[in-house]
This record gives sequence, structure tokens and C-alpha cells, in this order.
Amino acid sequence: MYDFSDRVKNLTGNAIREIFKYLADPEMISFAGGLPATNMLPKEEIGKFMAECLEENPTAFLQYGSTEGYLPLRNSYLDYVKRCGIENQSIDNTLIISGGQQGIDLMCKCFLNKGDAVLVQKPTYLAVLHILKTYEASVFGVEQGEDGLDLNDLEEQIKAHKPKFLYLVPNFLNPTGKTLTVETRKNALEICEKYGVLIVEDDPYRELRFEGTPLPSIKSFDKTGTVVYLSSMSKTIAPALRVGCAVGPEEVIRKMTIGKQAVDVHTNTLAQGVVDKFIRTGAIDRQIERAKPVYKEKKDLFIENLDRLMPSSFIHTNPEGGLFIWGEFTDGTSAKAKFREAIENKVAFVSGNDFFFDGSGDHTIRLNFSNATKEQIEVGLHRLAKIFKK
Amino acid sequence: MYDFSDRVKNLTGNAIREIFKYLADPEMISFAGGLPATNMLPKEEIGKFMAECLEENPTAFLQYGSTEGYLPLRNSYLDYVKRCGIENQSIDNTLIISGGQQGIDLMCKCFLNKGDAVLVQKPTYLAVLHILKTYEASVFGVEQGEDGLDLNDLEEQIKAHKPKFLYLVPNFLNPTGKTLTVETRKNALEICEKYGVLIVEDDPYRELRFEGTPLPSIKSFDKTGTVVYLSSMSKTIAPALRVGCAVGPEEVIRKMTIGKQAVDVHTNTLAQGVVDKFIRTGAIDRQIERAKPVYKEKKDLFIENLDRLMPSSFIHTNPEGGLFIWGEFTDGTSAKAKFREAIENKVAFVSGNDFFFDGSGDHTIRLNFSNATKEQIEVGLHRLAKIFKK
Repeated sequence: MYDFSDRVKNLTGNAIREIFKYLADPEMISFAGGLPATNMLPKEEIGKFMAECLEENPTAFLQYGSTEGYLPLRNSYLDYVKRCGIENQSIDNTLIISGGQQGIDLMCKCFLNKGDAVLVQKPTYLAVLHILKTYEASVFGVEQGEDGLDLNDLEEQIKAHKPKFLYLVPNFLNPTGKTLTVETRKNALEICEKYGVLIVEDDPYRELRFEGTPLPSIKSFDKTGTVVYLSSMSKTIAPALRVGCAVGPEEVIRKMTIGKQAVDVHTNTLAQGVVDKFIRTGAIDRQIERAKPVYKEKKDLFIENLDRLMPSSFIHTNPEGGLFIWGEFTDGTSAKAKFREAIENKVAFVSGNDFFFDGSGDHTIRLNFSNATKEQIEVGLHRLAKIFKK
Repeated sequence: MYDFSDRVKNLTGNAIREIFKYLADPEMISFAGGLPATNMLPKEEIGKFMAECLEENPTAFLQYGSTEGYLPLRNSYLDYVKRCGIENQSIDNTLIISGGQQGIDLMCKCFLNKGDAVLVQKPTYLAVLHILKTYEASVFGVEQGEDGLDLNDLEEQIKAHKPKFLYLVPNFLNPTGKTLTVETRKNALEICEKYGVLIVEDDPYRELRFEGTPLPSIKSFDKTGTVVYLSSMSKTIAPALRVGCAVGPEEVIRKMTIGKQAVDVHTNTLAQGVVDKFIRTGAIDRQIERAKPVYKEKKDLFIENLDRLMPSSFIHTNPEGGLFIWGEFTDGTSAKAKFREAIENKVAFVSGNDFFFDGSGDHTIRLNFSNATKEQIEVGLHRLAKIFKK
């Protein structure tokens, strides 16, 4: 009945948000979402910091604020991103965003005309595919090869499609859990620089590394204004705060700011104040250190149960961080085809094809290990294995 | 250097956000912003409600939430909008938004292809003009006549341009302070229904009525799914919370929700919880009743000083609510031309032309009476009058 715009006319909700409705069932064990462990969320610190903010500077935290973000937070974020090697930036290189996802949306808003090409990893974060649809972009996937990005394919795809930007998750990619090596980071940047293609480096999982060595961000090697780095506090502090930060070339940040003016004026200021205090007081590091062993323990338990219970045709990643394990049925079993049966048996997952720009990948599956309790992991994987062993 | 999209290429920031930088000067007296009175912001209640939310249900307020919004708030909003006559709606008719402005943006996202026509009042809220540019819409203005909307012109413009929607502020229009009569509301709806044109009814100022009788919303007369009503808590509770609600036909709300998934996943949940408690406990009404006499006193003082100090060629509105007085120089004096001199003399306003889709209106001026103190109103208007008497 309504004459919707072309960009939303045929758009249905993104798959994960749609799965949410099944999760209301209290008996459902979910490996579907990308939720941090609920009992690790720092309730006390958030409450304390909110009260402090309101006490110290009520005007700043209640009245309208600037679109660019709460100034102290922009400064503390400059400090925070030094841990991934991003130096020599000024506050003019920062924009506080309402969650990392808003950064992707604003980059699309600032760069994409209808039909413009964008490259993503294959598979990639499914929300980015949803966002790109709302900009009527032409999306192409780059093969992942061994460590998340096949550089030959990257160059081929750039030559073939002349994309506006490459969207990359460098650490613990959602969905595969893969991390780009330092060499791949440098080489991908070099290739993109050569062809004048921007990189959107989306890095929400970096701090959730419970094994191995942290790597410098792609942005840390950027001398030419090629990379816009997106940081999020959804996985490290709490998703509900909806706070992140874009760090990029001043000219790009300026346009993103003008775009943000139009969409939500500014990000909730109290949430910005809370994040600022988490960074300044070091509470964020205490929180991360507290979370890591819990995540590692859950991941190990998950892997152990997968190996014991799942059919032999099932292979999977063993990530050093993040929230996800990626599985594949080498005999071509379709995870997608089993989804409904899984839901009926009270276990939820996300079928891998939702992460492929071209809808391929039916035989793959994404499993979240962070949100379920240890008992739920054991029971849920029994349920899952039973379905896939049929 | 960067190849920005057509929609942002030539876009500069909206005028008011740009004026913000002058306001950092502590000697500046500002009649420029659209800020509620800072000392009226309910700091204690907000702090108390936040603590209660975190205590009562930490998971809901820290973990990811649904895009549609925090369910108790969607329910309490259904109750809240009954005060403007909106009945018989279900929660499927509601979407919690990150400030009223996000509702405008989402309506554009859901309905506008490049070049599509939109009607606005002439003049209108300037941010809507900025948003419409980011969708490359064709914008046309409807004359206001006596009470904010000339119905003959509305019908002419609809016939000429076949707009997707009409954007209206029914109460205390920013910038003019004008309010549509009940008859005009009904007739505008009838005309829009006749031609299949949607109405975006943006109503942030309704509760700030300190004189006269509150009027039913246009949405309250809507039997055909023609109106999307936008409510905001920025003027009644606090701008920094960034919480509002869209109430509209289920099919439209569903598409707006899919659009919102892509832009910020969901609105900060603690802020939603706070607003829910404001509505449920009646604290919002106590807050509004506390604010009204303060606003009326400031408005009266402002008018009194304008009448005493400004040149005789200056005429102005005398609004029954809202935040703004609208002035006009009948001798054609350009407020825009005097802006720099005003800034140098430490008084800020917004030139009226920023509110006209076609950039006309140089001889008009918008004055905010709510944010300055009484002393600042007196001193600031002396400064202003001196400039315009030259």
C-alpha cells in the first residue's frame, strides 16, 4: 500500500535480529547472537560513573552536546587507540558514534552513490550487508584464503569493480573468527593505496584476545589518509550504551560529522561520559582482563564439545579471541536446511549463508560461545549434534 | 581529494550547529540554540531512575536490546500519546527512536528516492532541510498564512509536485512559534488523504504550552494510516538522553525499524528505561508543570524587552508555548547581514533565512527565549537592539 523508497522496498530485517524473536523462549539455548557474557557486564562501574558524571557536570550530560562528541571522551579515545598503534592523531580525527555500526552507516552515507561498488570479506559481518543494501551499493566479496584476505583476489576485485571502499574486520572476524596477519594488513593497505580505495577497518573484537599476540591495526600503518578506523565499546563495556569512535582523515571525519548531524544530532552524552571514565580510570582494562579468562574457558569448552559430539564431516576454527566459532560441513550438509529443526529442538545458531554477499555458504554455520553458560554450552551442543548426526 | 557521495559533496553543517562554536565564548549571550532551560533539567530524577533501572534489571539495560525499543517504554509511550488524542494504537505502531530527529531521517530513508518531492512549511525546522539534502530530495515550501499552513497553497503544491510527504510541526513551530488550529489540522489531513500524501507530524514542543488550550494532534484524526507522529523527550526531560518515539501505521513502522537496524541497532537502553520511569511515575508531568511558569516568565520578559528596545519596524510573534519568538523587519532590514556584528557584540541569534527551503527570509530572525537567564535576556536584547537601531 505504501510507496516505499527503492532502498527499503524489498528489504527484510537482518537475519540475526529476526532470530531474536525465537530467543524469548526460556528453554531456547542460543549460540545465535553476538552478545558478550551477560554476567560479565560491569553494572557497578557503569552505575557509579553515571552518578559521578551527573554530579560533576550536569549541564554537559543533560543539555544538547556537540555532534563531534563529548570533548573529554574524544581525547581519551585518542589515548585508547594508541594501544593498536594509532598515533599522531588529533581530536579533529575523531568522531564519537552511536555504536560501531553507525560508523559503517556514515561511511556509506558519505561515499556511496547508488550502484557504487564496495568490497567485503567473503563471508563478512552480516549487518554490513544489510547497511549496504540501504545504500543500493554493488557488493563484491574477496576470498579469505588462509588468514582472512586473499591479496591476489583483492587486487583482481579492485581492478574489476573500482570500489569506493573495502570493509574489513582485522581481528576475530565476525563470523569466521579469523585475524589478518601483520603482513596481510600492510599489503592490503598498500594495494588499496595504489588504487585509491579507502579501507573501513571495523575493530570491535580486538581487546577480546585471550590467546596469542595483539597486532597493530591497519590504521597504524596509514600515512596517506586511506583508513577510517572504527572502535566500539559494545563488546568491551556494554552493548546497550551504544558508544564507539571513528578515527580517520580530518576531511572524512568532517563529512561524517555533517552526516551524523542529520541522523541523530549527537550520541547520548551520559553514555559518552561513562566510557570516558572507563578509559581514564583504567576500569576498561580491569574489565577486559576480568572477561578474558571467562571467554577462553567458554571457547575451550565449546571446542572440546564440538570435537566430541559433532559428525566427522564438521570442521571449525579455533579463534584466539572474539565471540565466534565458524564451522563448515565438508560433506555439504546444509546448516540453513537444519535451522528450523534446531529451533524446534531448542537450540539456535546462525546459518553461514547470511554472511555471504551472494547468499552462498549454506554448508557453514556461525556459533557464538560467549553468551551461553557452561551448562548451556554442553546441553546445547548435544542438541545440535543430534540434529546434524541424523 | 576524497570522492564523496553526491548527497554530501556540497553539504556544509547545519547553521545552528555551526553557530555552536561561537557559544564557547563565556561572554556570549545566546538566543541562537533551541535549548531548554539548563537549570530546569531534572538531574535528580534522571540519576535516581538510572540507578533503579540498573538495580532492577541489569541485563535489559546493559545487553543488546531490540531495535523496536525497550518494551515497557513502548507501552508507556502508548499511554503518553493519549494526551494528544492518539488512541487505539498497539505497540506494533511504535518505534523508539534516538531523538525525534531520527524519526525524520528514517521517514526519508523509507520513502525518498533521489529527486522525490517533499513539502515543508515555509519557514520550517532547519534540520529537516539538512536531512532532506542528504536524501537529495526536491523540497517545496507551503505558505503559512495566518496559523501556520495555507490550505489552498498546500493543495496547489501537492498538485504541482506530487510529494511523498508533508512535514509539519503542529505546535509552536520552530522557528515561528505558530500553532495550527484544530480546523487546519483536520483540513490538512483531509487534503493529504485525498491525494495520498503522508504527513510527518513532528511534535517536540506540545507539552511546553504555558498559555491557551492544548489541541489534539493531527494523528488523532487519522483513520487511514496517513500520519506518522514523532514525539521527543528532548524538550520535556533532557536533550542529551536522545529518546523519542514514532507512532504510525504498522507497515511504515516495520520499515522504519528495518532502517533503524542498519543505522544504530537500537537506542541507548538506559535512557529508554529512564524515560519509561518518567512516564510511569508521573515525574514527567511534575517536570512539565515545574517548567511552564519559568518558560512563561522568560517569554514575557523577552517580549516586553523586544517591544521596548527594538526599532519600530520590528514585529514579532507572541507564542503560547515552545522555545522561540519569530521576528520580522518590515523595512526589509537583513538579520543575516547583521549576524557578524552581533557575534562581535557578544549576542547570538539565528538568521531567519536558514529556515526557508529557498534561502529567502533575510529580514527574519529566530530568537530563543528559554535558555538565557533573565539577566541575560535583558542585557542581550540591549545589545541586539543597539545593532538593529544603527
